[in-house]
Amino acid sequence: MPLDAADALLVGVDFGTLSGRAVVVRAADGAELGSAVFEYPHAVLTETLPGHDVRLGVDWALQVPNDYVEVLRHAVPEAVERAGVDPARVVGIATDFTACTMVPTLADGTPLSELPEFADRPHAYVKLWRHHAAQPQADRINELAARRQEPWLARYGGMISSEWEFAKALQVLEEDPEVYARIERWVEAADWIVWQLTGSYVRNACSAGYKGILQDGRYPDPEFLAELNPAFADFVKTRLEQPIGQLGAAAGRLTEQAAGWTGLPAGIAVAVGNVDAHVTAAAGNALAPGQMVAIMGTSTCHVMNGDELRTVPGMCGVVDGGIVSGSWGYEAGQSGVGDIFAHFVRTHVPAEYRHAAEAEGVSVHEYLTRLAARQRVGEHGLIALDWHSGNRSVLVDHELSGVLVGETLATRPEDIYRALIEATAFGTRTIIETFTAAGVPVSELFVVGGLVKNELLMQIYSDVTRLPLSLITSEQGPALGSAIHAAVAAGLYPDVRTAAAAMGRVERAVYTPDPDAAARYDELFEEYRRLHDYFGRGGNGVMRRLRAIQRRAVTSR
Amino acid sequence: MPLDAADALLVGVDFGTLSGRAVVVRAADGAELGSAVFEYPHAVLTETLPGHDVRLGVDWALQVPNDYVEVLRHAVPEAVERAGVDPARVVGIATDFTACTMVPTLADGTPLSELPEFADRPHAYVKLWRHHAAQPQADRINELAARRQEPWLARYGGMISSEWEFAKALQVLEEDPEVYARIERWVEAADWIVWQLTGSYVRNACSAGYKGILQDGRYPDPEFLAELNPAFADFVKTRLEQPIGQLGAAAGRLTEQAAGWTGLPAGIAVAVGNVDAHVTAAAGNALAPGQMVAIMGTSTCHVMNGDELRTVPGMCGVVDGGIVSGSWGYEAGQSGVGDIFAHFVRTHVPAEYRHAAEAEGVSVHEYLTRLAARQRVGEHGLIALDWHSGNRSVLVDHELSGVLVGETLATRPEDIYRALIEATAFGTRTIIETFTAAGVPVSELFVVGGLVKNELLMQIYSDVTRLPLSLITSEQGPALGSAIHAAVAAGLYPDVRTAAAAMGRVERAVYTPDPDAAARYDELFEEYRRLHDYFGRGGNGVMRRLRAIQRRAVTSR
Repeated sequence: MPLDAADALLVGVDFGTLSGRAVVVRAADGAELGSAVFEYPHAVLTETLPGHDVRLGVDWALQVPNDYVEVLRHAVPEAVERAGVDPARVVGIATDFTACTMVPTLADGTPLSELPEFADRPHAYVKLWRHHAAQPQADRINELAARRQEPWLARYGGMISSEWEFAKALQVLEEDPEVYARIERWVEAADWIVWQLTGSYVRNACSAGYKGILQDGRYPDPEFLAELNPAFADFVKTRLEQPIGQLGAAAGRLTEQAAGWTGLPAGIAVAVGNVDAHVTAAAGNALAPGQMVAIMGTSTCHVMNGDELRTVPGMCGVVDGGIVSGSWGYEAGQSGVGDIFAHFVRTHVPAEYRHAAEAEGVSVHEYLTRLAARQRVGEHGLIALDWHSGNRSVLVDHELSGVLVGETLATRPEDIYRALIEATAFGTRTIIETFTAAGVPVSELFVVGGLVKNELLMQIYSDVTRLPLSLITSEQGPALGSAIHAAVAAGLYPDVRTAAAAMGRVERAVYTPDPDAAARYDELFEEYRRLHDYFGRGGNGVMRRLRAIQRRAVTSR
Repeated sequence: MPLDAADALLVGVDFGTLSGRAVVVRAADGAELGSAVFEYPHAVLTETLPGHDVRLGVDWALQVPNDYVEVLRHAVPEAVERAGVDPARVVGIATDFTACTMVPTLADGTPLSELPEFADRPHAYVKLWRHHAAQPQADRINELAARRQEPWLARYGGMISSEWEFAKALQVLEEDPEVYARIERWVEAADWIVWQLTGSYVRNACSAGYKGILQDGRYPDPEFLAELNPAFADFVKTRLEQPIGQLGAAAGRLTEQAAGWTGLPAGIAVAVGNVDAHVTAAAGNALAPGQMVAIMGTSTCHVMNGDELRTVPGMCGVVDGGIVSGSWGYEAGQSGVGDIFAHFVRTHVPAEYRHAAEAEGVSVHEYLTRLAARQRVGEHGLIALDWHSGNRSVLVDHELSGVLVGETLATRPEDIYRALIEATAFGTRTIIETFTAAGVPVSELFVVGGLVKNELLMQIYSDVTRLPLSLITSEQGPALGSAIHAAVAAGLYPDVRTAAAAMGRVERAVYTPDPDAAARYDELFEEYRRLHDYFGRGGNGVMRRLRAIQRRAVTSR
């Protein structure tokens, strides 16, 4: 780092599912000087559109783009104020985003949902990552790609997700061709927010690779797209293609308008957009092969670098430079984790538990965790499948759903709560075993995110995976990762690895497996695996049929 | 009925799982003049013994015999008082009981749990019907009986239940030989209570047949028993055998002591004991072939007469004269029904629902039912298996447990509540289809019990089974059935059929299937059946393994 920059600061902004978080970071050592959170005013739209009596379908999840700008206007200046620093010291800003979250826009970046004529059209809105209504399109993409033996398919573990750019776009085309006709750019929210900061549109290498099927410089070809739908043939050329920016590079400079929103100096470096999971590897300086980073919040994302290109069945993807330049970046994920626990606490816990938690001055989560911690492995007699929000890896099927086996009249809420925690740990183990079997061994888990504070959960993950768990100790993992990229974009460090070594924050092997518990979990994991394969690999297609029956029932209302 | 008896009254007493109910009935027309309930002070023992710090095992369920006597002392006089009649008009009393509920006694009927030296010994207590800890013994009985091709096995659908007399007795022998050694009579609670009323022990034909493996006048032979356990060889001879009384016959006369308890005239007729389910067929005058009676409470029992002897796989049993003399009485059952809904409401419903129910002035059950009633068939996207208390028919396996498939982050309590109702209806349909396929067709369901007041549930049962539902309109179905048997025992009617025709109370075809809903349920039932067979017929033995893991975990504490 140049000596004259010892005093330099960066701002990292992490756009999550429900809120955006800004953090002010010292370039020299990654110290977090101040942070602020701003909740999206419209949160996630799942029932209807704001101000319009339009009913959304099953599995829809939309957002409102201006909510993201509001984060820049509120969270960034508040973080700087809390840090108690002169904003003039900030030399760079970087952002990371949920993915794949897509904004349909005009050529100038105006979101279609902001056009008055489209305000009541669901397809004009941002499709959040967890919008899962494009599964029929994803199924067709997968079926056709497998039939045509498309070379890119193996890079995605053999399956494209309904969450990603092509499936979501095809859904718009087929369900609302008028909206589709007006789309001039089909933009990752990760890039749209950088566009708002810099005034120019640069597509980041990470989401283009993982979510946009860009491999070896090429997208799926027009013949393939035409076979999906003739009107889709020109999708890449007319709506998707855009110059690619590498992670850590500068996408541009902060505009006067964005300087006004954020209170930061105009003209500072703005890094190329990034994805919340991938950017976090830098925050933990977990960039070596075998170091798998698990970002554990509402969902869990797993990212890991590898020296070689391997095909891992059911991984989300492998992208050259997808996490850091010079390595193959592997990604996997579990689409529901903290979400599942929150859903359970919200809908399945009786009043007595709430009162008892209040009496003890703890949250219901903490109260259930305390009760669950008293049990020995297997004592509850339950096995759950953690697919309440579908399965991202290794099955890549968002029509899957949750299962609970073993409930009796003696089953208590803490029993199910623990079984759900274990189910998510088994999901992680399934991913790790799949990577290892494919020649991409995992030797250490680096964990970060809202769930890390649950010590029972952490120990269960260590026991179930038989791996040491290292904690990325930043309060705002992805935002710190973004700040590290901002430091590189601002020229303070030569590359992301060097910046991460100086600024990353991690405590190694905080949890290690208990051999006795691990042995007992091996037995339960066998049961999980058997149910996983039965419900997830074609033994019984009941979950997909239930979704179909549900859709018909809702439609016939 | 003799003219001079036009004024005669009967008392029927129904001993349920948690309480006993007495009803005063007019002999002429079955009118119920007064009734009273008395809750067992010790309810069901599942954790520990009263006054002793003894921990019971998983799946244990015990009772205290004196609780039954307390019902005679409280509920009977209270019912007479409420009826506002002169007790001298009562000419007979009859009782019915849960089954198979077993009392270990001395030769004079003294329960072993009342001996001071055995007060802290779990095996000295009454084993309630839903004591399911004798499954290992039941498994061995079934395995051996199948291997030896015991002729009686087909009479029980090919499988003996862990709930029944032999499995429970064998468990006592093998787990507490000292207690077993002191057992001089192994008595159905149904007969023990009659013993308390009359001073003499008569074994009733119904429970001896259904629960005691008495077929064609013979029990399993000593060679069979010796092969199970040499010390068990003389079990029938030394502890079980006793003269059999036919249903509707008098077991004896009311003793002075029992007259003192009940306030009824000493010397009146006391009918042979009966089982709560079977006695109810008389209450609904549902004694013809094809008329299946479903007694729907915490569990559901199905009883039906047939003209011919058939082998129905997985039925509970077929007994000559088991329901009424001159017919083959068939029995099947679902071990958890209302229990499952109660468990759900107790442990899985959040405070908001409770408050909303209170605000509307209804129970949580009613509130959930209202919400669930707004849905179309299949809208919740769920399938459940109703095995939270094991499966009595047609799988006969109490190591089975509940399953819920299809939960997502959008699933609400009312969705699961409805899915559980449907699961129990699918369980009933499974039984009906099995009977029909075995040549014992079912043409009409006669329903009675606590669940009958739930109109949504009733309609779902009619839609799922495609059968008309007739309501047995007595407020106290089994108790009325007992009163009908008391009338026969007292000589007021020549037989149970004649008495039932005069005194039974039923409203025919109150619910009939909706063709559209029935068609949609056919589709969901196919999913139920597939999961039923997978988890219940050997596709995946996970439920049994989870129980084994659970037992080991609890033991290793």
